[in-house]
Amino acid sequence: MIIQKTENSRISTFDPNNFSFGNTFSDHMIICEYENGKWGDVKLVPYGPLLFTPAMMGVNYGQACFEGMKAYKDNNGQVFLFRPEKNFERINKSAKRLAMPEVTEEIFLDGLKALVDIDREWIPQGEGNSLYIRPLIFATEEALKARVANKYMFAIVATPAKMYYTEPVSVKISDHYSRAASGGVGSAKAAGNYAASFYPTQLAIDEGYDQIIWTDDATHEYFEESGTMNVFVRINDAIFTPPTSEKILDGVTRDSFIALAKKRGFEVKVEAIKVKDVIEAQKNGTLKEVWGVGTAVVTTVFQALGYNGEKLELPRLSDEESFAVTLKNDLVNLQTNLSEDPFGWRVLVDHALETV
Amino acid sequence: MIIQKTENSRISTFDPNNFSFGNTFSDHMIICEYENGKWGDVKLVPYGPLLFTPAMMGVNYGQACFEGMKAYKDNNGQVFLFRPEKNFERINKSAKRLAMPEVTEEIFLDGLKALVDIDREWIPQGEGNSLYIRPLIFATEEALKARVANKYMFAIVATPAKMYYTEPVSVKISDHYSRAASGGVGSAKAAGNYAASFYPTQLAIDEGYDQIIWTDDATHEYFEESGTMNVFVRINDAIFTPPTSEKILDGVTRDSFIALAKKRGFEVKVEAIKVKDVIEAQKNGTLKEVWGVGTAVVTTVFQALGYNGEKLELPRLSDEESFAVTLKNDLVNLQTNLSEDPFGWRVLVDHALETV
Ligand SMILES: Cc1ncc(COP(=O)(O)O)c(C=O)c1O
Ligand SMILES: Cc1ncc(COP(=O)(O)O)c(C=O)c1O
Repeated sequence: MIIQKTENSRISTFDPNNFSFGNTFSDHMIICEYENGKWGDVKLVPYGPLLFTPAMMGVNYGQACFEGMKAYKDNNGQVFLFRPEKNFERINKSAKRLAMPEVTEEIFLDGLKALVDIDREWIPQGEGNSLYIRPLIFATEEALKARVANKYMFAIVATPAKMYYTEPVSVKISDHYSRAASGGVGSAKAAGNYAASFYPTQLAIDEGYDQIIWTDDATHEYFEESGTMNVFVRINDAIFTPPTSEKILDGVTRDSFIALAKKRGFEVKVEAIKVKDVIEAQKNGTLKEVWGVGTAVVTTVFQALGYNGEKLELPRLSDEESFAVTLKNDLVNLQTNLSEDPFGWRVLVDHALETV
Repeated sequence: MIIQKTENSRISTFDPNNFSFGNTFSDHMIICEYENGKWGDVKLVPYGPLLFTPAMMGVNYGQACFEGMKAYKDNNGQVFLFRPEKNFERINKSAKRLAMPEVTEEIFLDGLKALVDIDREWIPQGEGNSLYIRPLIFATEEALKARVANKYMFAIVATPAKMYYTEPVSVKISDHYSRAASGGVGSAKAAGNYAASFYPTQLAIDEGYDQIIWTDDATHEYFEESGTMNVFVRINDAIFTPPTSEKILDGVTRDSFIALAKKRGFEVKVEAIKVKDVIEAQKNGTLKEVWGVGTAVVTTVFQALGYNGEKLELPRLSDEESFAVTLKNDLVNLQTNLSEDPFGWRVLVDHALETV
């Protein structure tokens, strides 16, 4: 790895109690370029702009996929990643579906650890705080031809993140728009999937909802995901979540929730969720909770479901009654080294590079 | 418009008889930036790189759409665009679906004309030659949050294009992969749609085909498009093409073919095309032609259809017998000012800017 430390650290300008998530960038970034059929050197360099023309294939033909993950600092200042190998596997799955070159462990995991190590001062301490990390691969070749590109960049950038104060939200069950086609790229973390979701989400917001529950595009009879989260439904004391498929992103948080729920002895059913069954459960009072899970917010609890022009309210449970909140706390405690790690999910980031 | 002519024209390095399509760029480009809710000045500047970081939202969340169009030089050196208002309308339709700001006529059409005017020496003369023009809009804001961006760039870049020598090709009728979801972004020229198509196309190539005929994702029983072209089927002497929909790109070439076919008195049926009916017509000998149309190649004639593991051959028609070739010639003659223009499709590009 080629390491070029910044000579102008911005860390003194960073106030962990007052920063804006998503556009405050840490001092460094990882970049690695692919050309002539192979990846070059992994470079750790100061975060900053690179030269691209508007003919860059990544923005013309959408060959671009990404990951979203976090680094956490415990009360002693130790830094941990959470299941990074899952994101490594998934970015390569996404890359494959988009006909892009896969990255090696050395590029992804070593790059990740080096960046988090050198920029560890950018990780805010305290409940709900973390460093949000964005690995991505995108086509950099300049060419106006709709074909697989020959040049790519792998990059990792990072932004400090704080607790989202997530009020319970209202979600609309989609009856027209959809996120993924059968035989499409829904299971890839493809850049284009996100742009496709913005307009329908905006329409749902205009109708008084916060987000969408995506349903299958052919019939809109089955739950798929919600916003950029996987979805869970609790009927009586059983938890349901749809199986992953080519239309559903295989979320790390979803997988972790399932394992944590089983560990607690909750009944977990990974099976197709029919909209009709959820509506019926709401009407007969057996629907206890519906929530979304993902790296960014961990959990968002839904307070109402929009369906067929009706806004169906969900029960307001206390934190103790709520499976969503119980599991969220289990997960956060594990991620931030406040609890044991029976699954071996935490990965300590060593002090390998002298800090800036 | 702000005009900054290049002081280092590369036109002397451009050999119209020997250049590579798609990565030879003309001297200039148009750029226009969107910020604080409005578009800024349209600028004509030397083609070249701009500064973007890997946190650019266009490559992270795929808010990016484009157009593909051509400028033609007639035998007298006059330069024409072809139905540019169609591309103007379509880029705004794409932008809307991707929750991006629409551009004005002044930005799109005036920018286009200025670029083609100033770079007119980059348009190769002669049959099949043209300047391929790429207008695009992409999110430029740097932020790691899956939401609508606040900053965008509109750009136009151009590359000289020559005749594709299109041998008849074999196409596989897709029975698993698909291009567009119901309620998705198939009718938008969204960057992400192209990346999504590369891997399935590669698999079809591995099976001995050149391209895919996309079918509906729910049942794979209906034709949608082929590669990046709209599709036509001729059974006996009737021409069929599917109606445009939210899953099908509303192609300018398709629309022009329909008008030209009607003008010739051909029977044109804009209706759903069932895979089953096409296969049956092939078996009973009534299937005469299947072809794709689009700006880049104008027409690609299909010689075989792959279906259910079988390769079904199509008749080899002479140019005179072929409706595809007849209509292609009608279109090319109109585009290059070799025939009358009863539809008012050609737009002359005036000498408004002193050439470099
Ligand atoms: C579409 C979509 N679904 C689900 C998730 C949740 O995945 P993870 O738990 O790995 O963050 C994400 C990403 O955050 C997503 O973008
Ligand atoms: C998916 C797709 N379908 C059809 C077409 C044909 O459209 P047009 O005739 O406007 O070039 C294109 C673009 O060229 C395309 O990308």
